Amino acid sequence: MAVIRPDNVRQARILRLLRDDGPRSRAELGDAVELSRSRLAVELERLDHLGLVETAGLAASRGGRRSSIVQIARQTRFLGIDIGATSIDIAVTDGELRVLSHVAEPLDTRQGPEVVIGIALQLVGKLRADDVSPGFVGAAAGVPGPVRFREGVPVSPPLMPGWNHFPVRETFAAELGCPVLVDNDVNIMALGEKHAGIAKSVDDFLFVKIGTGIGCGIVVGGEVYRGISGSAGDIGHIRVDDNGPICTCGNAGCLEAFFGGAALARDAVAAARAGASEELARLLARSGTLTAADVAAASTAGDPVAVGMIRDGGRRVGQVLAGLVSFFNPGLIVIGGGVAGIGHALLAEIRGAVYSRSLPLATGNMPIVLSELGDRAGVIGAARLSSDHVFSAR
Amino acid sequence: MAVIRPDNVRQARILRLLRDDGPRSRAELGDAVELSRSRLAVELERLDHLGLVETAGLAASRGGRRSSIVQIARQTRFLGIDIGATSIDIAVTDGELRVLSHVAEPLDTRQGPEVVIGIALQLVGKLRADDVSPGFVGAAAGVPGPVRFREGVPVSPPLMPGWNHFPVRETFAAELGCPVLVDNDVNIMALGEKHAGIAKSVDDFLFVKIGTGIGCGIVVGGEVYRGISGSAGDIGHIRVDDNGPICTCGNAGCLEAFFGGAALARDAVAAARAGASEELARLLARSGTLTAADVAAASTAGDPVAVGMIRDGGRRVGQVLAGLVSFFNPGLIVIGGGVAGIGHALLAEIRGAVYSRSLPLATGNMPIVLSELGDRAGVIGAARLSSDHVFSAR
Repeated sequence: MAVIRPDNVRQARILRLLRDDGPRSRAELGDAVELSRSRLAVELERLDHLGLVETAGLAASRGGRRSSIVQIARQTRFLGIDIGATSIDIAVTDGELRVLSHVAEPLDTRQGPEVVIGIALQLVGKLRADDVSPGFVGAAAGVPGPVRFREGVPVSPPLMPGWNHFPVRETFAAELGCPVLVDNDVNIMALGEKHAGIAKSVDDFLFVKIGTGIGCGIVVGGEVYRGISGSAGDIGHIRVDDNGPICTCGNAGCLEAFFGGAALARDAVAAARAGASEELARLLARSGTLTAADVAAASTAGDPVAVGMIRDGGRRVGQVLAGLVSFFNPGLIVIGGGVAGIGHALLAEIRGAVYSRSLPLATGNMPIVLSELGDRAGVIGAARLSSDHVFSAR
Repeated sequence: MAVIRPDNVRQARILRLLRDDGPRSRAELGDAVELSRSRLAVELERLDHLGLVETAGLAASRGGRRSSIVQIARQTRFLGIDIGATSIDIAVTDGELRVLSHVAEPLDTRQGPEVVIGIALQLVGKLRADDVSPGFVGAAAGVPGPVRFREGVPVSPPLMPGWNHFPVRETFAAELGCPVLVDNDVNIMALGEKHAGIAKSVDDFLFVKIGTGIGCGIVVGGEVYRGISGSAGDIGHIRVDDNGPICTCGNAGCLEAFFGGAALARDAVAAARAGASEELARLLARSGTLTAADVAAASTAGDPVAVGMIRDGGRRVGQVLAGLVSFFNPGLIVIGGGVAGIGHALLAEIRGAVYSRSLPLATGNMPIVLSELGDRAGVIGAARLSSDHVFSAR
């Protein structure tokens, strides 16, 4: 499939407007993008020819001749892939980034890139089986580690042995036949909340993912900020205690070594084995292993050890976030990722630590909330990232 | 004096180009801003009429008729004011932001806004005495505390009792008769290093001021990032130790309560009085007071207590910066402000802490350096801030 892109910034602006605001009459569209009727006609004809927009009936009269309604072509498809450390989510969206189909499966990224990308492509094939559209206009994938964004390759990702410098973007692009972008998974989750979630009206905010590891997506002026080498937001490896446990990165006392899915599971198993918690011991005996979800369940059941683990972890996350609030003065903090499923008990601890440690000027109007999109944040954000790329001038 | 501004974005682009790159031939200028000869002529005529540009002779021939050279009008003046907690710097620049005259005096901001602004205006009068130019096209002032940028008023500044919500911008504007902006002093210092200092070629960096207090200017994509309520970069109040000294902000254990000019002076006096340091006791006896400069002098003289104070402080600053490097992944960190005058002994401690605690991907290409402009960073940055404002479309 050939790469389809608009010719110029006017066409790109038309496409983004139709994507974000839905179908519009030619008259409204001309006003919104500040183009004359004749200039708009030229650009729309070209976009129609590219198969990116189409006409959908007539608008109500504004006094004169009725204007026709324009929309992103119904067959436009974006693909969003969200690879987590222990799961994969894939969605197909239309041109307005509405999710048409979505699949989620457990997956261990430690199986290496060939196996994981192979599984991802199989799942994409299943999602496409019933779809008559000609193919994807664009795709994007998130992975749980630092990514050199321009090249689309992971760089020394602690949770992804075997992925270092693997050409993830090239591999997907060759198989999918469309432009592909690869980014850190937290960045695409932040973009998802910006596009369709709780951060829709906020331009400067932080999205904190507490999953197997801990990371942060930074949005500045409505765009993801990636830093000079693509590692911005790597807050899981901020040191919170010199005498802490050893982290997957090799250092001691990182936030992620104290909290996050992997640390919670480790501490829960230790507590169960040491006989400190009957509830955790019972859950361990039943399934042979413990996860963050088990700690959440034990906590809800009133188990004091589990409650203490969530309190300690939330306090440490809040301690790091308090410093970042003083530094970055965001308009909002969104907490997401699997461990965020623990919900309000965790949120309360994080809020307590941030609000008591940051200056009032910075926290006065700053809500700390749970993700609205949950598992869908990543795939919607990936579709958004891809559409921002495709809906831009060559 | 009437407010002088360009009419449109084309004129604004021409002005910024002449400001940053100096005089250009009409032919080069037309190429650089992508305007036809006739369109350029129209815009330049208007800018000439406004008194913002002028012709300065003929360029060498490019084959045809010789093109005339255009430059920012020689009489263009910007005013930069940098109010620190214990000093004030004021400079007058030309349209290319070259410093024409500069004055620095000790000053205590705790005297309140009326007194301080009165002194500032007196100093401005002195600087203007020998200048035949018609007046300032624009001015900007930095103050050592959080500022609501749009209104130009300080908000609860811990080091500036009596300044809370004082209309600093309005007061200066009424007296100076030109557009005035007011910003946090660290933000203008960061802009100064971006315009004419060590950060000239870096778009994403941090400027850390260690003066009486500690603050940080954040530059993203070449522009100052101020956060949602203007308090971004307020790193002096990041908590580094729950059991630390009480800070001016009322909390305990803030970075600024451990280090910075005020904390160094406090600890030095305590050490001198306790008989822990002969050198500091000698300096205290001589002048009746101790400053960060005395600690630097004692440290250079080999006094172990002074050396220890600088080591401890540098390590704590580095500890906070290590977290911010993981979060923000900057391309450069510039250390400035009065205490930075301690120089390489302090820099070495900060570097040691940052490089040992941040991930290699983030620190690989990230220099940590001392400010190049020193006392001039603030006034040049203020002139730059003002010119960015004036050299923009209405």
